[in-house]
Amino acid sequence: MTEDDGGLPLPINGDSRIFAILGDPIRQVQSPTEFNRLLRRLGFAGVLVPLQVRPDDLAGAVDGIRRMANFDGFIITVPHKIAMLELVDEVLANGARVGAVNAARRGPDGRWQGDNFDGAGCVRALAERDVDLAGRQVLQIGAGGVGRAIAMAFAAAGAERISLYDIDEGREASLAANLAQHFPELAVETRGRALDGHDLVVNCTSLGMKDGDPYPVDPAGFTSDMVAVDVIQTPEISPMLVGAEAKGCIIQPGRAMTVAQMALVAEFFGVPTAR
Amino acid sequence: MTEDDGGLPLPINGDSRIFAILGDPIRQVQSPTEFNRLLRRLGFAGVLVPLQVRPDDLAGAVDGIRRMANFDGFIITVPHKIAMLELVDEVLANGARVGAVNAARRGPDGRWQGDNFDGAGCVRALAERDVDLAGRQVLQIGAGGVGRAIAMAFAAAGAERISLYDIDEGREASLAANLAQHFPELAVETRGRALDGHDLVVNCTSLGMKDGDPYPVDPAGFTSDMVAVDVIQTPEISPMLVGAEAKGCIIQPGRAMTVAQMALVAEFFGVPTAR
Repeated sequence: MTEDDGGLPLPINGDSRIFAILGDPIRQVQSPTEFNRLLRRLGFAGVLVPLQVRPDDLAGAVDGIRRMANFDGFIITVPHKIAMLELVDEVLANGARVGAVNAARRGPDGRWQGDNFDGAGCVRALAERDVDLAGRQVLQIGAGGVGRAIAMAFAAAGAERISLYDIDEGREASLAANLAQHFPELAVETRGRALDGHDLVVNCTSLGMKDGDPYPVDPAGFTSDMVAVDVIQTPEISPMLVGAEAKGCIIQPGRAMTVAQMALVAEFFGVPTAR
Repeated sequence: MTEDDGGLPLPINGDSRIFAILGDPIRQVQSPTEFNRLLRRLGFAGVLVPLQVRPDDLAGAVDGIRRMANFDGFIITVPHKIAMLELVDEVLANGARVGAVNAARRGPDGRWQGDNFDGAGCVRALAERDVDLAGRQVLQIGAGGVGRAIAMAFAAAGAERISLYDIDEGREASLAANLAQHFPELAVETRGRALDGHDLVVNCTSLGMKDGDPYPVDPAGFTSDMVAVDVIQTPEISPMLVGAEAKGCIIQPGRAMTVAQMALVAEFFGVPTAR
């Protein structure tokens, strides 16, 4: 069996530990493939399954999962990340800062803990390419859910300045205020769209998924010393990244963030990730 | 990928339908291996996972499952088969006769239905070897949960006479009465242990799993025209079956019943089983 088997886990039997991803819709999720492939590579007997849960059913579904003794944790995706804050016994520090939970686990004492790894996955993927956030001048487009997580993670990893832009000014201002509150030494700017003076550009919007979408930033402004990061997964290399790559930038597509996040989430779930 | 891969399903993704087996303990279950192998062979995108649910948690866990829109059905094993009668919206005819539910599904109208396939699996496995129950003189040892299911299925499949024996006389009498009630034309005898005059012998006790267990019936009494059936899965060929085989009987071990049952349960769950 190779890495090209579609990401199957080890054989499933009565000893397998159970994990899931909860979302609605669920068809689009990549985590079953990525996480099961990781579990197999780690030699860990467990499996992650997709579970479609509608918003009205979330509390009941989570209560059911808590009653399944070999169910150790789950990933939470759209539209449940904020609602999950109320459905765990404890929200860990980063989840509280971001204001959203994207992974929950049964803690050692049986209480359920929630945290957020969306941003940490992005930072980790960059670190794996020797891109350090320390001292960075970041231009970030998009201040929605993923944007909040990434800004908080970039700030925690030592970014010097984050310039924010969101089409929704209120959302942008709110994230700017939260960043200033949690990271007093961070320089935060708003209404910024010019690449000038930045060395890392991250798109946290869905722009680029659809044909004819405008670019989140003008790719003509990229210079070869910049790093360009996109959160979108489809197409694999977004139009913005194509433009950045043509200018000689280091680029990081959305999938790298997902893959890196899986390792962090596995660790959070109690899967031994070091061999 | 071969049949020797440990029974993995097709790759798991957002389109996969979800199934489970609920029990406590859960480590011993064989269904994940058998059912996932079957799903793969049928080319059906789905996966069955083991879920350990303690008796006090059963109602809550089942309620949670009902709120997972891509969760289509589950198998129920010890100790939940009787409690499940109350946790589905409708118990189908065979489940009601047996007085236990070992599979539940989301019906086409969204209501959950429960039924019992323990006995039907045994009958189907025999049919696959051209052993017909019609007109059979059956000696059955054991009138517990599996025994009830098998006796009802054998009666429904046309057995002429069932002689029952259970170490617990009350349990034996109760099953005998239920058989007589549902199958008035069936001859039912109690306190029978002699093989004489029977052409199919089925062990529905756990005798033979442990070293030093007595035989459920004296294997010296087997003759080559008899069929010998055992429900135990470990050892694969029970001591009783070893004895029967030595006398030239057709034998059927417990695993054959499990495998045959999986196909029936898959059909019940809405998996297209004909190619």
